[in-house]
Amino acid sequence: MTAPETPPPVIVLVRPQLGENIGKAARAMLNFGLTEMRLVAPRDGWPNPDAGPAASGADIVLAGAQLFDSLAEAVADCTHIYATTVRKRGVSKPVLTPEAAAQQVRGTAGRSAYIFGPERSGLETDDVALAHSIVTVPINPEFGSLNLAQAVILLAYEWSKGAALSQPPAVDLDPPAPHGEMEELVQHFVRDLDAAGYFFPPERTDATLRTLRTALTKTGWSCNDIKMMHGIISSLGRNRKFR
Amino acid sequence: MTAPETPPPVIVLVRPQLGENIGKAARAMLNFGLTEMRLVAPRDGWPNPDAGPAASGADIVLAGAQLFDSLAEAVADCTHIYATTVRKRGVSKPVLTPEAAAQQVRGTAGRSAYIFGPERSGLETDDVALAHSIVTVPINPEFGSLNLAQAVILLAYEWSKGAALSQPPAVDLDPPAPHGEMEELVQHFVRDLDAAGYFFPPERTDATLRTLRTALTKTGWSCNDIKMMHGIISSLGRNRKFR
Repeated sequence: MTAPETPPPVIVLVRPQLGENIGKAARAMLNFGLTEMRLVAPRDGWPNPDAGPAASGADIVLAGAQLFDSLAEAVADCTHIYATTVRKRGVSKPVLTPEAAAQQVRGTAGRSAYIFGPERSGLETDDVALAHSIVTVPINPEFGSLNLAQAVILLAYEWSKGAALSQPPAVDLDPPAPHGEMEELVQHFVRDLDAAGYFFPPERTDATLRTLRTALTKTGWSCNDIKMMHGIISSLGRNRKFR
Repeated sequence: MTAPETPPPVIVLVRPQLGENIGKAARAMLNFGLTEMRLVAPRDGWPNPDAGPAASGADIVLAGAQLFDSLAEAVADCTHIYATTVRKRGVSKPVLTPEAAAQQVRGTAGRSAYIFGPERSGLETDDVALAHSIVTVPINPEFGSLNLAQAVILLAYEWSKGAALSQPPAVDLDPPAPHGEMEELVQHFVRDLDAAGYFFPPERTDATLRTLRTALTKTGWSCNDIKMMHGIISSLGRNRKFR
């Protein structure tokens, strides 16, 4: 997932307020394989009894969390520091998306750190000044409301992705029919097959139905295709009387 | 950010348990510009007084949320349905990353839906059977602990991104049958439809046949699917004599 010489980024929570949010951040990290958490002057001290229950089992992250008095000490061994903030600051630094930051982290030989501010106020200008880059999650300009754990999970998620890229093929086809039409086709099949005694033995009916539904769902049939299939089902039902 | 003809995906919560989590999902959605929420049989009814406070201001999403009795009704107008689930299911569907799914959504002319299961148990097999694709967030195999709102935010975040990057989908499916088997299926249809008088008027036969062949060819049906369809054709031909 990452080159062997590139260590995963460190997650640094600067002056976090609630123990519960530290726990949630730990849970968010571990989902995507990040284990190294550093805490700078947490408001309620450390350890914090509220952190564990909120971590939902990510205890390994909390147990290994390191405590520091200042941000500068917390990132002393890091070669590249990313300040996560949604607001424009009076500091001129490159502003990266989580995706671009993750690519840089993977491409750097040294240790990287993602730093996050207190829940209510975010990072101070002095904290941001210490960073090499700013990471901003592009959010709805009319509703930006990411909490700490959500910001952590988005950065961790992006970091965890591999760097392989591809473009989807350009497809230009009749669009698939809306689900309601496909559902009617399934029901038409079921009705007529049931009348024909197809669902036998009865205890296999559910499984057979699921297989049929899966086969029909993956067809990508358009409205016209489905119309044709209705005609086909009806025709086949009239078949034997001509023989 | 998205082609004008591609509507944003609908977020469908299937049998959600806590109102608080519905509110958190709404907040997650609105951060990334998604506003259309649909609820299928929420456990505690709807509206739910716990949803509003948890939405942190995303009231527009909750106010517009639509209520449905069944998943099939909730997605009746959707052309492509993505089931979000972390577990392998006994249903064989393409499995996509959030990134690959987002690209598909942006590349589709119709309406797409992301469906999410109840907090505790996730989607039932029958829910998944209704979907065209499965979306799985690639998480730490030793610690998978995404809650509902986190799953929603990751999918919404990926959708909101530009189309620049993607991971190829990890597909693990029955391969489509070789052409010879598909050809035999086409011939089986033709034989029985011909006997039923389906190809009428005769001068339209070639065009009708071509349409049928195109619809069958794009199904991607496996050998097992084709075997099932042979059985279905035969069954339907026996249909009328039971009536």
